Amino acid sequence: MIIVMNAPTADQIKRVLDKLTQTGLEAHYLHSCGRTIVTAIGDATDCNAAQYERMPGVDRVLSIVTPFKLVSRDFRTENTIVQVEDVCFGGTYIPVIAGPCAVESYEQFRDSALAVKKAGAKLLRGGAYKPRTSPYSFQGLEQEGLEILKTVSREVGLPIVTEVTDPRAVERMADQVNMLQIGARNMQNYVLLKEVAKTNKPVLLKRGLAATIEEWLMAAEYIMAGGNDKIVLCERGIRTFESYTRNTLDLNAVPVVKELSHLPIIVDPSHGTGSWRWVGPMAKAALGAGADGLIIEVHPDPEEAASDGPQSLTPANFCHLMQELSLLASALSRKTT
Amino acid sequence: MIIVMNAPTADQIKRVLDKLTQTGLEAHYLHSCGRTIVTAIGDATDCNAAQYERMPGVDRVLSIVTPFKLVSRDFRTENTIVQVEDVCFGGTYIPVIAGPCAVESYEQFRDSALAVKKAGAKLLRGGAYKPRTSPYSFQGLEQEGLEILKTVSREVGLPIVTEVTDPRAVERMADQVNMLQIGARNMQNYVLLKEVAKTNKPVLLKRGLAATIEEWLMAAEYIMAGGNDKIVLCERGIRTFESYTRNTLDLNAVPVVKELSHLPIIVDPSHGTGSWRWVGPMAKAALGAGADGLIIEVHPDPEEAASDGPQSLTPANFCHLMQELSLLASALSRKTT
Amino acid sequence: MIIVMNAPTADQIKRVLDKLTQTGLEAHYLHSCGRTIVTAIGDATDCNAAQYERMPGVDRVLSIVTPFKLVSRDFRTENTIVQVEDVCFGGTYIPVIAGPCAVESYEQFRDSALAVKKAGAKLLRGGAYKPRTSPYSFQGLEQEGLEILKTVSREVGLPIVTEVTDPRAVERMADQVNMLQIGARNMQNYVLLKEVAKTNKPVLLKRGLAATIEEWLMAAEYIMAGGNDKIVLCERGIRTFESYTRNTLDLNAVPVVKELSHLPIIVDPSHGTGSWRWVGPMAKAALGAGADGLIIEVHPDPEEAASDGPQSLTPANFCHLMQELSLLASALSRKTT
Amino acid sequence: MIIVMNAPTADQIKRVLDKLTQTGLEAHYLHSCGRTIVTAIGDATDCNAAQYERMPGVDRVLSIVTPFKLVSRDFRTENTIVQVEDVCFGGTYIPVIAGPCAVESYEQFRDSALAVKKAGAKLLRGGAYKPRTSPYSFQGLEQEGLEILKTVSREVGLPIVTEVTDPRAVERMADQVNMLQIGARNMQNYVLLKEVAKTNKPVLLKRGLAATIEEWLMAAEYIMAGGNDKIVLCERGIRTFESYTRNTLDLNAVPVVKELSHLPIIVDPSHGTGSWRWVGPMAKAALGAGADGLIIEVHPDPEEAASDGPQSLTPANFCHLMQELSLLASALSRKTT
Repeated sequence: MIIVMNAPTADQIKRVLDKLTQTGLEAHYLHSCGRTIVTAIGDATDCNAAQYERMPGVDRVLSIVTPFKLVSRDFRTENTIVQVEDVCFGGTYIPVIAGPCAVESYEQFRDSALAVKKAGAKLLRGGAYKPRTSPYSFQGLEQEGLEILKTVSREVGLPIVTEVTDPRAVERMADQVNMLQIGARNMQNYVLLKEVAKTNKPVLLKRGLAATIEEWLMAAEYIMAGGNDKIVLCERGIRTFESYTRNTLDLNAVPVVKELSHLPIIVDPSHGTGSWRWVGPMAKAALGAGADGLIIEVHPDPEEAASDGPQSLTPANFCHLMQELSLLASALSRKTT
Repeated sequence: MIIVMNAPTADQIKRVLDKLTQTGLEAHYLHSCGRTIVTAIGDATDCNAAQYERMPGVDRVLSIVTPFKLVSRDFRTENTIVQVEDVCFGGTYIPVIAGPCAVESYEQFRDSALAVKKAGAKLLRGGAYKPRTSPYSFQGLEQEGLEILKTVSREVGLPIVTEVTDPRAVERMADQVNMLQIGARNMQNYVLLKEVAKTNKPVLLKRGLAATIEEWLMAAEYIMAGGNDKIVLCERGIRTFESYTRNTLDLNAVPVVKELSHLPIIVDPSHGTGSWRWVGPMAKAALGAGADGLIIEVHPDPEEAASDGPQSLTPANFCHLMQELSLLASALSRKTT
Repeated sequence: MIIVMNAPTADQIKRVLDKLTQTGLEAHYLHSCGRTIVTAIGDATDCNAAQYERMPGVDRVLSIVTPFKLVSRDFRTENTIVQVEDVCFGGTYIPVIAGPCAVESYEQFRDSALAVKKAGAKLLRGGAYKPRTSPYSFQGLEQEGLEILKTVSREVGLPIVTEVTDPRAVERMADQVNMLQIGARNMQNYVLLKEVAKTNKPVLLKRGLAATIEEWLMAAEYIMAGGNDKIVLCERGIRTFESYTRNTLDLNAVPVVKELSHLPIIVDPSHGTGSWRWVGPMAKAALGAGADGLIIEVHPDPEEAASDGPQSLTPANFCHLMQELSLLASALSRKTT
Repeated sequence: MIIVMNAPTADQIKRVLDKLTQTGLEAHYLHSCGRTIVTAIGDATDCNAAQYERMPGVDRVLSIVTPFKLVSRDFRTENTIVQVEDVCFGGTYIPVIAGPCAVESYEQFRDSALAVKKAGAKLLRGGAYKPRTSPYSFQGLEQEGLEILKTVSREVGLPIVTEVTDPRAVERMADQVNMLQIGARNMQNYVLLKEVAKTNKPVLLKRGLAATIEEWLMAAEYIMAGGNDKIVLCERGIRTFESYTRNTLDLNAVPVVKELSHLPIIVDPSHGTGSWRWVGPMAKAALGAGADGLIIEVHPDPEEAASDGPQSLTPANFCHLMQELSLLASALSRKTT
C-alpha cells in the first residue's frame, strides 16, 4: 500500500505511520515535490485502505496488489480447465453452447436442441426462470421449463446450462442441470454467489452490464473463496453511450482476463450485439481475441420467440456459422468441433 | 406500436398486418421515402414487439407508450406520499436520513444516532448486511447488527432503514425495521423485489449503477405490481468514464422522475460523490433540483469506519450542513426540519 | 513518480534505477508482497512516464502530482476573478448568460436580448458559426450573424459571448466580441486553443462531451500556458448510457473543479438536460452545487427556433426562473442580479 | 417523420398538421391508447424536427430515415474501394498500416519503415503534428517531421498517412503525403473536415472518443458532401467506465458500419487497447469481425518512444503477428499480404 500525502504536517505523517505500525506493517516515507510518499511493507490486504484516505494530509491511497487472490494468475499459473460432463473449457478446444433464450415448449426446445447438436454445439442453453426488465414480460415456464430441459437433455444427449436467480432454488437446480448460469444482473448478488459456491457444479458467470473487469473477477473470487473453482467467465457486452447496438461487446476483456486470471472466458455475441445479423462477425471476432468458447442464441422460429427473437439465429444460420468457425479455429491452432 | 419497414415487398407488409390482426390490433399503413410505416391501433402492451423486429422487411419497432404503468403519472396524477412512521416523503417536507454506512458496535451506532437526531435527521440508516465487492471485506454484523439497530432505534426514538439482500430474510427484517432498502447492486434482483412487494413496509429503492431511468422505474413497477406502493426512489450516482469521483450523481434524474412518476425521489450525495468534501455542495444541489429527501452517511469517527469512511461526514460537518439546508429549503418554499 | 514492479529480476530493477538516475532523479526502492516499489525523488514532470511502463518487470507507473500546473490551486491559492466588461465571474456574484442558441435575424436576436436583459441576464449568448452534427443543418448566419451580434450588443447594452470554431477567425472575432466560447466538440482542438491563448479576451471553455475533469483542466492549461488566464470553465453535461436526457449534467464537477483549480466554473443546464422543462430545476441545482454562473438558452419563439428549440426557455419562463434564482442565491449568501 | 402526441387537444393536433402542410408535407393521424400518431408523408429531411418537439401536446418526434445520405448503403449499394497509391481498402485485400506513433528522428523512422515493410505492411504511419493532452508533452517534430516522412517514404517505397490538425495546413500537407488522417479528437472539427473535403486525397477518419456510430458517419458525410468520397473509417476504441484498458475497442462497429455504409472500415488495436500485449489478440479479433484493414503502432525501441511506447509493438512482435494474420485471413477468404 502506498499513501500519497499532500504537503502534510509532521504530525499528520506521524499519525499515518503510527496507524500502519499498529496494524503490523513496516512503514517508510520519502518527500518529493511537496508530496510525502508513505510505503507500507507487508501484507496490507486485510488493512482498510479507505481509513487512511480519510486521514488529514492524505491525498490518495494506492494498492499495489490486485484485490482478487484465488482467481489470479499469481495463485495458479496454468489455465484452469472447467469440465462440464465431457466438455472442457480452457484448453485447445473451443466449445459452443447454443439454444433458445427461453424454453417455451417441449417441441420448441427439442427442435432447437436437435438442430444445434447437429451443427456441432456441445452444450444446450435455455432459460426456465427469466429475469425480465418488465414484470409484464414472459417470466419463463419455471418448474415446467426445468422438466423440459431435463427431458430434452436426456433425449438429445447434450448437457444443460440454465440460469439460477433465487438462492432458495440453487441446491435443487444443481441436482437437475449440468451447469448453473449467473446472469449479468445478478453478478453482484452476493447471496446467490455464496449459494452456488457451496455446490460443486460448474458455474457460468456473466459479466455485469456495467461491471469492470476487476469487479467481475471479484465476483468469481466470491465463488472460489466459497469452495467452487469450476468457473467459466462470460463476456456479454457492457453498457455504453452507443445505442445502435444493444450492448458494446468488450472483446478487450478476453486477452485481459486471460492475463489476469487462470479461469476460462467465453463470449456471448447474441447479447453482445442484440441483432442476429452481427452475431456471426462477432463470434468470429471472439475466436480471434482468444475466447475459450461461445454461447449463441438459436431459435427454430425467431419470429415467434417469446424473448430475444431479434438476436436469435435460425438453425440454418447457426449451421453455416459453425462451419465458418471451424475453419477459423484451425487457423488459430484450435478446434470448435 | 409503430413498425417502420424499409423498402418492404407487398408480401412482407401483408405478413406484418396479418400478425397484428391476429393479436387483435387494428393496423394502418402509409408509404413515405421508401419506408412503410405500419401503425397498430389498440393496446399493444401485451404484444411482443421484438417478434415484429425480427420479421423480414422490418427496420425498427417503436413503442408509443411507456413500459411502466402503475408507477407512471398517467396512472396516478398527484404525488404519492410515502409515510415511514411519522415521516413523510413526497410532500413539502424534505426529510433527511442519516447514519453510518455499517453498524459496527452498539456505541458507534448509538453515538451516530444521537448526533444525527440532534442535527435534525428524521430517519436512521445503518447496514447490518453489507454487499461488498470483495469477499474479504467486512460483511456487516448481520443478526447482531440488526439487534443493535432495533435497540438504538428504540432508545433514540428514530425509525430505521436498512438494506435487505436475501429474499429469505425479507419477512423477518420487515418485522424488525421501519423501511427496507434495496441497494444499487440488487435493483434488478427480481426475486428480491417480489419479496419486498409482499410486505407492506416502505421500500427505499436505489438506482442501479448503470440503470437507465426507465429500468429503475420498471424495478419500482415490480414492487407496485406485487402490491406495495410505498416506494421511495433514491438517486445515488451512475457509472461513467469520469474517475475523479466515485460515481456521477445524476441530478437530472430528479426532475425527470418527478415528471414521469408520482413516486417520491431522494438523493444520496455520499455514494454519489465518494468524498465527504463534496457531500455538502451536492446535498444543496439536490435540494435545488427538487429532491424529496436526502440520505447522508455520518460516522462519529470516519477515520476508523469499517466501510465508506472517505465519504462520511463527522457529526460536526453534518450539523453545519443541516443548518445550510434548512436555509436553502426555505428559499425553495420547503422545509428540512 | 512511483514505479510498481511485479516480481522483477535484479537486472530489471537496475535498468529502471539507471534510467531514472540518467534523467536526474534520485531513486529509492522497497520490496513488499512480491512487488518492488521504486520511488523517484525530484521533479518528474518532464519525464516520460510511459517509457517506464514499457520496461520489463514494470507493472504500473503512478504519478504523484497533477498534470496541470498553472490552472491548479497549487499554483494560485485564491480564486481567479474573470472580468468581461463589468461582469465578474468567480466572486460572490453569480452572473447569468442568456440568449438564443443561434442568431437567426436582427429581430429575433434583439427581442431575445431585450427580454433577457430585462429579466436580469448580464451577458448575451448567440451563435453565428454553429458546429452542427449534420452538414445539412443550419450552420449559422456566419459573418452576417456576427454583425447582428455587434449591433444588438451596442443597442441593448450587454456584452456578447459567441463560439469560435476556426483558428483563422480567432483574431478577427476577438476584435468584435467580448468573450470567446470554445465549444464542447473543440475542447481538445489544440490548434484553436493555442490561438485563443494569444488573444487577451476572456474565454468560455466548455467541457468536452466525454472529457474527464483532468482533460478539461489540461485544455485550460493550454490556454493559460499560452498566456491567457481569463478562463471560465463551463460544465454542459457528459455522455452516458442514459438516453432520456440529452446529456448527463455532471454537477459533481462543480465542487471538484473548485477544489482543484482557481478558475471560475459555470453551468449550462440547457445542453445539460436537453429539455426546457428541466432547465429550471437544474439551474437551481447548479447554484446549490456552488456554480459561479449559468448560461441558459432563451428564444422569443422556441417553436420556430432554427436550433435547440426543445431546450430553450421562453422569455416568460426565463423571467420566472430568474426570480427563483435570486431568492436561492440569497440563501447561499450570493447574488444573481 | 412520426410525431407522437400525448393526449393532445384538437387544437394542438391542428397546429401540428398545419405546420406540416406549410412545409409541403402530407400528414395523416391516428389515435391509439391516448396517443395521437401523426405521420408526415414526403421528404422530411429538410424539416426541423426539433421544432415539432417543442410544440404543446407533442411527446416525441421520430425520424424514419437515417440522417446520413451519401455515405449510406441506400445511396451506393456496392462497397467503395479507396485506393492509396496501389493499396486498396474495401476489397478482398486487408492492408496493414504500421509505424511509430510519432516521427522522432530520421533514423528512428527509417528503421521503423524498413521493419514494417519487411513484415508486410503496405502503408507507413507516423505523426509530425501530435495532438497531446498536455501542452508540456512532445508535440511532434512538425515541419521537420514532415520532411523525414517524405524522405523515408521515397527511400523505403511505402506511401504515408499522417495526421492533420490545422485547417491552414491541409492544402500543404495534401501535396506532401498520400493519405490524411483526422484524429479522434478532431472527428467533429467541422472546419477541418470541410478543408480535407476540398482535397482529393484519401482520408483516414478516426472515430471520436465518445462518438456514436451515427455521429461518425455524419462526420464522413461532411467530407463526402464536400466532394471527397475517398474515406476510410477507423475504429480506435471508445470511452467507457472500464479503466483497465486505455479504451474499449468497439468491434461491433465493424459489422454495423458495413451494413449502414459503403465505406471501408479499419481497426486500430493499439489505441483500442493501450497495451502492446493485447494488440495481437485484438488485431486477430478485428479480422474476424470483418475489418478492411488494420493500423498498428510499431517502434524500433518502444522503451525510448517519445509517445505511446506502452502500446507499440517491436519489429519482432509485429513480424510474428503479420504471419498469424496472414493465416487467419486465408481462413476468412481474404489476404493481408
